[in-house]
Amino acid sequence: MTKPALKQIVLASRPKGLPTREDFRLEEAPMPELSQGGLLLRVLYLSLDPYMRGRMDDRKSYAKPVGLGEVMTGESVCEVIASDQAGYHVGDTVLAPTGWRTHAASAGKSLRKLDPALAPIATGLGVLGMPGFTAYAGLYLIGKPKPGETVVVAAASGPVGSLVGQLAKLAGVRAVGIAGSPEKCRAVVEEFRFDAAVDHRASDFGEKLAAACPKGIDVYFENVGGAVWQAVLPLLNNFARVPVCGLIAQYNAAGPAPGPNLLPATMRAVLSKSLTLRGYLNYEFAAEHYPAFLRTVGAGIADGRIRYREDITDGLENAPAAFIGMLEGRNFGKALVRVAPSA
Amino acid sequence: MTKPALKQIVLASRPKGLPTREDFRLEEAPMPELSQGGLLLRVLYLSLDPYMRGRMDDRKSYAKPVGLGEVMTGESVCEVIASDQAGYHVGDTVLAPTGWRTHAASAGKSLRKLDPALAPIATGLGVLGMPGFTAYAGLYLIGKPKPGETVVVAAASGPVGSLVGQLAKLAGVRAVGIAGSPEKCRAVVEEFRFDAAVDHRASDFGEKLAAACPKGIDVYFENVGGAVWQAVLPLLNNFARVPVCGLIAQYNAAGPAPGPNLLPATMRAVLSKSLTLRGYLNYEFAAEHYPAFLRTVGAGIADGRIRYREDITDGLENAPAAFIGMLEGRNFGKALVRVAPSA
Repeated sequence: MTKPALKQIVLASRPKGLPTREDFRLEEAPMPELSQGGLLLRVLYLSLDPYMRGRMDDRKSYAKPVGLGEVMTGESVCEVIASDQAGYHVGDTVLAPTGWRTHAASAGKSLRKLDPALAPIATGLGVLGMPGFTAYAGLYLIGKPKPGETVVVAAASGPVGSLVGQLAKLAGVRAVGIAGSPEKCRAVVEEFRFDAAVDHRASDFGEKLAAACPKGIDVYFENVGGAVWQAVLPLLNNFARVPVCGLIAQYNAAGPAPGPNLLPATMRAVLSKSLTLRGYLNYEFAAEHYPAFLRTVGAGIADGRIRYREDITDGLENAPAAFIGMLEGRNFGKALVRVAPSA
Repeated sequence: MTKPALKQIVLASRPKGLPTREDFRLEEAPMPELSQGGLLLRVLYLSLDPYMRGRMDDRKSYAKPVGLGEVMTGESVCEVIASDQAGYHVGDTVLAPTGWRTHAASAGKSLRKLDPALAPIATGLGVLGMPGFTAYAGLYLIGKPKPGETVVVAAASGPVGSLVGQLAKLAGVRAVGIAGSPEKCRAVVEEFRFDAAVDHRASDFGEKLAAACPKGIDVYFENVGGAVWQAVLPLLNNFARVPVCGLIAQYNAAGPAPGPNLLPATMRAVLSKSLTLRGYLNYEFAAEHYPAFLRTVGAGIADGRIRYREDITDGLENAPAAFIGMLEGRNFGKALVRVAPSA
């Protein structure tokens, strides 16, 4: 009789620029055994997030890079299939940092139990999870928009951006989204009810953005970097706030960026307009603000004022292609891999 | 009998890069007459400040540019020589926005009376004036250093930088200065009592700066821009604060900056280290904090814990050369022009 095996995806090589499928490798590994006080988990949904691109590089950052041959980092929604820990039972649904794999052992730490009766379980990886809290913390705790001000967010059809705009509207603030296609722009306005949306691939993007922000920009939620920033910079008002939570447009950059050097103009704007740029990781605010986030967004989902989209790919073996597509902006909504059907 | 005349310096042409003496013109103009409720002022000291370079460009900024043929903007310490306003008497010493001239009429607004018994009157343009408050506001209100942290400031022998380091020391913070010559570096340590000073013109500047900051940098007080920022960036600690109050190294830049593009690396550091960059003008904080600044720094000067240097040029006609020298870093201490001897 063959020993039962799990599947996992490891980092095969460090990408230069945009990752390719060959940078990943699907492997089998022995199924872990239940340790004393631990749990065994079956992964239902794996989350694909832009930050994972950073972990593929051997560059100093806030987190250790994934080593060559190591399982890709990732969070997932899991079903408990065996438990030796009080408080967790077979059949429970939990959030866990399992990495890209079908099954995982857990020492029972860094878990969060999900209540399937409150919201669909996959939302724990999206609108009611890390991406949602990233939007909430950046907008409300750093951006602090006041009624009547204008908030601009890029990747506005994505899991973070779509919530930023909806939270802005809840606060009485004008919400302008930037997205990468006419279809996404339409959804930003019709589905997520932003005041306006602008396609950053349009040739007259800068003018369209200016027209959508007649009173300038008070909060620019920076989650893409690159060319969008250049269009935003001249529109920022005095005392504008720029929470910086992601730079997906430059994650694939290899080597020094070609000129012109855009730093002096940015620093000049920081000075002459008294701007605040503030990078952050959602962890910084979690202990104090996560419960309020869950209440606010949970209530918004329950009563329909907050909407979300998911972009689900089936099968762990398809995770690399889905991840590459997300980095290229081909997903629409929170990128998830359904690793196993939930009960 | 000839009518009495005043002297003034006007903007003759807009500089390309570093200003030249030909960009200024010394003129005579009729002496103003005392208006109802107004004052007549004799300028004693004119302040030369880096921000004036910005006003010479026809570029949108927080303040209107100086027009061609108009008197250069500037603050000065003046003696009241005639007064039709209650509360001001002949012989009083006042701070006034006179511009670069020997005499000025004033409607009696935007004045601040100085008490010559409290401190030498020229300090009202330096350590006890706008440059001093700029240091105080940026360090204490934006940088907010905690005991044991490290503050780095460039132009550390200048009127803003030298006070930043001394205020840091008063707060129990390690102070590291950057200056443009071995002599200035020596003064930064010996006269202003910083913990260390590094010459940014040294070939191994980056390594020396790293050695002077063994625990990294928690607050970088940005008042120069340009190459120094590149050396500071890798040394910034997580959650470091960067008050941005000046960019003298790039004020003379004409046209777009050549590559490489340094903006992506800066934005990556903002994100990965949760940095705060915050531009400011001292006006923003003046109403609330100016009295506390005057008390704190005034007491520090009186008891010798705070020191300052002045770099005085005699004669209004020599103001352009002194101003150009200041932009080149050739001054040492607060740049002032003695326009007339004080009584």
